[in-house]
Amino acid sequence: MKDMALTIPTYDDMLAAHDRIRPHIHRTPVLTSSYFNELTGAELFFKCENFQKAGAFKVRGASNAVFGLSDEAAARGVATHSSGNHALSLSYAAGRRGIPCNVVMPRTAPEAKKAAVRGYGGTITECEPSTTAREAVFAEVQAATGAEFVHPYNDPRVIAGQATCSREVLDQVEDLDIVIAPIGGGGMVSGTCLTLSHAAPGVEIIAAEPEQADDAYRSLKAGRIIADDAPQTIADGLKVPLKELTWHFVSSYVSDILTASEQEIVDAMKLTWARMKIVMEPSCAVPLATILKNKDRFAGKRVGVIVTGGNVDLDKLPWMKP
Amino acid sequence: MKDMALTIPTYDDMLAAHDRIRPHIHRTPVLTSSYFNELTGAELFFKCENFQKAGAFKVRGASNAVFGLSDEAAARGVATHSSGNHALSLSYAAGRRGIPCNVVMPRTAPEAKKAAVRGYGGTITECEPSTTAREAVFAEVQAATGAEFVHPYNDPRVIAGQATCSREVLDQVEDLDIVIAPIGGGGMVSGTCLTLSHAAPGVEIIAAEPEQADDAYRSLKAGRIIADDAPQTIADGLKVPLKELTWHFVSSYVSDILTASEQEIVDAMKLTWARMKIVMEPSCAVPLATILKNKDRFAGKRVGVIVTGGNVDLDKLPWMKP
Repeated sequence: MKDMALTIPTYDDMLAAHDRIRPHIHRTPVLTSSYFNELTGAELFFKCENFQKAGAFKVRGASNAVFGLSDEAAARGVATHSSGNHALSLSYAAGRRGIPCNVVMPRTAPEAKKAAVRGYGGTITECEPSTTAREAVFAEVQAATGAEFVHPYNDPRVIAGQATCSREVLDQVEDLDIVIAPIGGGGMVSGTCLTLSHAAPGVEIIAAEPEQADDAYRSLKAGRIIADDAPQTIADGLKVPLKELTWHFVSSYVSDILTASEQEIVDAMKLTWARMKIVMEPSCAVPLATILKNKDRFAGKRVGVIVTGGNVDLDKLPWMKP
Repeated sequence: MKDMALTIPTYDDMLAAHDRIRPHIHRTPVLTSSYFNELTGAELFFKCENFQKAGAFKVRGASNAVFGLSDEAAARGVATHSSGNHALSLSYAAGRRGIPCNVVMPRTAPEAKKAAVRGYGGTITECEPSTTAREAVFAEVQAATGAEFVHPYNDPRVIAGQATCSREVLDQVEDLDIVIAPIGGGGMVSGTCLTLSHAAPGVEIIAAEPEQADDAYRSLKAGRIIADDAPQTIADGLKVPLKELTWHFVSSYVSDILTASEQEIVDAMKLTWARMKIVMEPSCAVPLATILKNKDRFAGKRVGVIVTGGNVDLDKLPWMKP
């Protein structure tokens, strides 16, 4: 395996990625809501990646990695470890190319997610839900298959793919002042930095994070990566830590990281479902939650809000009684 | 009160309505889903009136009625009886024009609906939950205010307004074979008939109805209006019976009425939330439920599906345990 993590992807990589993945992704719509504009005093433009193929922006990076492989490498397939949207997205992209996809998932992952991976043609190898077990099982799978490892975010091909989202936002909305996106491992935020720092350097980039998983916030303050061990938050896409490649982008281009409490995230999520009529994940509600509690910071501004995905368990909504 | 029910609205009325209401409504998007296309064997085009102002197509008809009033009539306001989307929509439209809106609602109507009516500036007069009580209270309100009665569907201004939805569908999707919409009182279906019978007479019009409130189905079979007294269905927007004006359109232009069971409706609703990531009412799931159980009827066809609204109580979803 090449050490791809130290290769910083460029704007040209993003443009090449966009050409490569365009047949496999949706150009998702941007929605507005006069209700939320009145509520916040800002003009909000919601980039709806919940309508994306496989239900999340992650299909952009996964498709770029899969379709950028040589035929020889592709024949051995791709592999990753993920219990979330990256597993679905990589399976989707591999299925489109007709190559094998091996995903190592904890045996405790939701059945719905496993079923979705299999539905796209992916093969699941289960492991115990611990980092040690996951890495050991993943090493075995990779040794047996020779498959190309596609990390969920610390991979230049993945970041170049995620960067295509902000390119579309710039085409869809004029004169933005701010773009805000949720931050976990930092793949989407890094892609946003890649595109905006080149094509619209005047646009401020803000990341939004759960208070209970605020390692990126503390990293930015400390000036180095702080990685938490297994933080607990309803925003389950945002539990993972920054890695060197995403840290490069976040530390260089993100002006601020704002945080929201669990209750604020759930309230913002439910309000969006009720008023905008879209199904989105708890992770996607974090930006809106931070806008609502920092109205002065956004009032009068034109703000792009990245809605990252819509894969939720409808039987376990956070406002349901267990 | 003029007897407006006997005036059949025309295609020109629809065009005038569209010009009149355009500043007050969204031109809602049409979404597609490769998942549902594969599942059904048809090409489905979902017209998303759940993204409409006030959350439902009803704002089209209500706005046409409100903005078509003379200044003199408008000054006395508008009034209706409704516990659903028409109450919200009329309040929204009246609020936009700055005129009073009186709504008679059963005291048992959901608090969320009452709050939404008040939020748009409407005034609620509560009544006991019976037809007798409702009519008596409504007569009092109207006598006291002189307000213009806007019936939820048996009104040519309302039907001309709803007809603008299909006009947009024709502009957004080429070469449709079928348009399918849910049927309750028949306002949306009548508007669909009005537009398509003139502008695209080759397009088949199918209505979809809950088995447990299948009065329109039985009416079409019998050749006369059959009105049920208080049918019970999860599709709460579809409980009301046809009236003479909507019967005119339904009996003249609807080729078929298909029905679905309560479970089929809930399954189709949940599947749409899960796969299309949109929040829609149980009523909107009836067309998809009937397509899924009559695949042969739709396979290979290009089908417009009207998603009528998205105003659901997120705390009482039909798949939640009570």
